[in-house]
Amino acid sequence: MKFRAEIDIMPQKAILDPQGKAVKSGLKNLGIEVEDVRIGKHITILLDAPDKNTAAARIDEACVKLLANQIMETFQYEIFEE
Amino acid sequence: MKFRAEIDIMPQKAILDPQGKAVKSGLKNLGIEVEDVRIGKHITILLDAPDKNTAAARIDEACVKLLANQIMETFQYEIFEE
Repeated sequence: MKFRAEIDIMPQKAILDPQGKAVKSGLKNLGIEVEDVRIGKHITILLDAPDKNTAAARIDEACVKLLANQIMETFQYEIFEE
Repeated sequence: MKFRAEIDIMPQKAILDPQGKAVKSGLKNLGIEVEDVRIGKHITILLDAPDKNTAAARIDEACVKLLANQIMETFQYEIFEE
């Protein structure tokens, strides 16, 4: 079966996000006032797996071992059947 | 009212995604076989607005004017009441 994982990797709340701060001030210059901006990564992975649990386990492993730096980032994902 | 916008900005399907290709091959080296990887940005914005439609209009404007390069990227967002 084919699955699609939608993964968000965001900077931890305690970590400064200078890119977010820059975007916030850029938006202000455009007249769009916002309270806070946090910028991270969105990763879409397509994979084949026998079932949803196996797909989730594989995505979890990918996040822990390669995609997210858990010292500075948090990750969350959702798995969809394609 | 306070709203939270969760925005995904992804490379267009027709556009090559070398970062995604690199991650795919990195995952393969870890023994995790996947079919495709696409990498984009995830942006969380907190804002004050009188209602959800106004919040959505403001986020749409932010995406079009600053956050997404629509030649190469697509964006989608969801607005949540905080």
